[in-house]
Amino acid sequence: MKIEIITIGDEILIGQIVDTNSAWMASELTDAGFEIIGITTVGDSAEAITAAIDRSFSRADVLLLTGGIGPTNDDMTKNTLCRYFNTSLVFSNEVLENIRSIFTHRNVQLNELTRNQAFVPKNARVIQNKVGTAPVLWFEREGKVLVSMPGVPFEMKTAMTKDIIPRLSDRFRMETYLKQSYLVSGITESALALLLTDFEKELPQGLSLAYLPSFGLIRLRLFARGDNYRQTFRVQSEKLKNILGDFLIANNEKPLEELLGDRLKLLHLTLSTAESCTGGLIAHKITSIAGASEYFYGSIVSYDNSVKEKVLHVNAETIESFGVVSQAVVEQMAENCAKLIRTDCSIAVSGIAGPSGGSEEKPVGTVWICTYYRGKSVAQKYRTGNSREENIARAANMAILQMLRML
Amino acid sequence: MKIEIITIGDEILIGQIVDTNSAWMASELTDAGFEIIGITTVGDSAEAITAAIDRSFSRADVLLLTGGIGPTNDDMTKNTLCRYFNTSLVFSNEVLENIRSIFTHRNVQLNELTRNQAFVPKNARVIQNKVGTAPVLWFEREGKVLVSMPGVPFEMKTAMTKDIIPRLSDRFRMETYLKQSYLVSGITESALALLLTDFEKELPQGLSLAYLPSFGLIRLRLFARGDNYRQTFRVQSEKLKNILGDFLIANNEKPLEELLGDRLKLLHLTLSTAESCTGGLIAHKITSIAGASEYFYGSIVSYDNSVKEKVLHVNAETIESFGVVSQAVVEQMAENCAKLIRTDCSIAVSGIAGPSGGSEEKPVGTVWICTYYRGKSVAQKYRTGNSREENIARAANMAILQMLRML
Repeated sequence: MKIEIITIGDEILIGQIVDTNSAWMASELTDAGFEIIGITTVGDSAEAITAAIDRSFSRADVLLLTGGIGPTNDDMTKNTLCRYFNTSLVFSNEVLENIRSIFTHRNVQLNELTRNQAFVPKNARVIQNKVGTAPVLWFEREGKVLVSMPGVPFEMKTAMTKDIIPRLSDRFRMETYLKQSYLVSGITESALALLLTDFEKELPQGLSLAYLPSFGLIRLRLFARGDNYRQTFRVQSEKLKNILGDFLIANNEKPLEELLGDRLKLLHLTLSTAESCTGGLIAHKITSIAGASEYFYGSIVSYDNSVKEKVLHVNAETIESFGVVSQAVVEQMAENCAKLIRTDCSIAVSGIAGPSGGSEEKPVGTVWICTYYRGKSVAQKYRTGNSREENIARAANMAILQMLRML
Repeated sequence: MKIEIITIGDEILIGQIVDTNSAWMASELTDAGFEIIGITTVGDSAEAITAAIDRSFSRADVLLLTGGIGPTNDDMTKNTLCRYFNTSLVFSNEVLENIRSIFTHRNVQLNELTRNQAFVPKNARVIQNKVGTAPVLWFEREGKVLVSMPGVPFEMKTAMTKDIIPRLSDRFRMETYLKQSYLVSGITESALALLLTDFEKELPQGLSLAYLPSFGLIRLRLFARGDNYRQTFRVQSEKLKNILGDFLIANNEKPLEELLGDRLKLLHLTLSTAESCTGGLIAHKITSIAGASEYFYGSIVSYDNSVKEKVLHVNAETIESFGVVSQAVVEQMAENCAKLIRTDCSIAVSGIAGPSGGSEEKPVGTVWICTYYRGKSVAQKYRTGNSREENIARAANMAILQMLRML
């Protein structure tokens, strides 16, 4: 059962925003057993939208449109869909009431633009948008389905989860989607590809392997569509796990910071971080996991050296002798942070994110990471890369991984 | 001069990754005067790629392909392009040498997969990839151009910036792209749309207005393509600025945290943050701006109450009487943080990110923010929303904005 996603929006074509909706939808739909065969972005133009719908309907059974509706640009998309499905707009009291109730809740006045959103195509099934003002519209023609929904991520996700995916699953017979995820580190993408050359060559029809490298980590996904592959899939995923050996961190979907959180909860340990170049990113990643307050107590972001000395009580002489990006300094940062915030474990990072600050001895991308656990310290030096964004992101991942490995 | 972007990759269709490349490319190309008329994602299949190229060539002058090449899946895309352009693969010593030099620099062994990348289509112009192993391929047919480049963001950006955009600008006569950006806050998207209804109705042909809402901020972009619009554009952008009035934070492209950085540098002030529910995100945003070390000294992420008491010296009785999410607590957090880290200013945030922790009196999304500046405090309460991710992101933006407004 093939799906194409069409995203409507000039703002995407001029690069104003990144289309995160498509990725989320593709992931959810794939998990539910659907197959996405294409994702297209078009501008806010009737011709472009009509052409895209035409093309996609020739290839797919279901079209999911996001964007192009809402208080700022509603008319054009709705009118385009009316023309496409040979229908006209009618006023819907039900939609108006829905809008009213949402606005009352937000304590905002109803205005003309939003009242306009209560006009809907006559032959569309209207699905009330529970968290926004633009209704979701479901059209059918010759056994195919087109759904038009708002582009606001939270509204789209709610509509997809509560209405669209359940209705599509009812409507079409779904194949089982089998997947196994592997989080890998310590090997480059090309070396990993070489390691897996034979495995991929011998992979049976119907099974696929996808690579996702990301700042020092690589996520692999083995997947297949169809219940008949279950046995083969089990065999191949076990085989892959063995080939990966020590490079494998975990074989589930959880992000690295959640794996660390699980381990800390299991061992009843608490954690703090002392961050310099990572500027709070490690703390942010850890606290983005719900329930982090159970094991994460806090952070000292010692961006300036004075903070390392006065708050973390790092020896001024140590900084002078070895430099602030050094083993001795991160070891003191880690131990003193754990004592100050009173946690069992701590992670300390000190490095040169760039673009300035590098030297021949310590070029941009030089990072020292120390992980501390009840009196024991492990300190390691890394070369993270050349760009500021990459250095900060990689240092954060390597630090979380180093802590995970220590426990 | 019309461009279409085609992204190749199964991993995007199964929602493994978000396609950030297209947004970056679209933004850079638009600024350089090109017009993006579509963005399409297809899977790693010869048929899908061929069909996409066919369709796009009927509409655009230039096709930019990313992905589908590299050590793991090189053959299929290159072979598809060979068939499309009626040519065959030949071995290129130049490419091999380029790969060798990159690997020597990284201290990695050359292997068969990467050696394979030295085979290139005979009638393509080969542009050496200075930061990766897969060469960039430039094809021409009947006055149209197709460029195939790696999907790895850093490699794509380097190729685009150093080679592709310059060559395209030489090849085609570009129109001037006029744009003006406005950062707005304190008004909902629909209320803003209402405020701008007349302005948009009266906007002359050739000018467009795009909205980008993001966690409490809205970025507006007025744009036009063509030097002949210069005068009109100047008039309209001034008109828009006046309509926006107090809702306008700044009329440039800079992110909020950079605006704050500029203000701090101008006034020679230093800043620290005391974060609870935002978990280090404010510090991370501030330090993502190069040169932040000039004004940002550090942060105390006091995720657990014990850290608020022991490190920030917030009164235990205050927490007991008013609760940790209260004006009294954030005021103490801000003032004590500024004293501890020894900065002129500080931002303190305490709130309930969710999903747990809410009550009837203080539901999920309740956030107190205090900004402190040399003895003066401004404390304000916010309702940020319902989802954890949204609450953390909005609280961070509102906190940075509150500090900016105070100065």
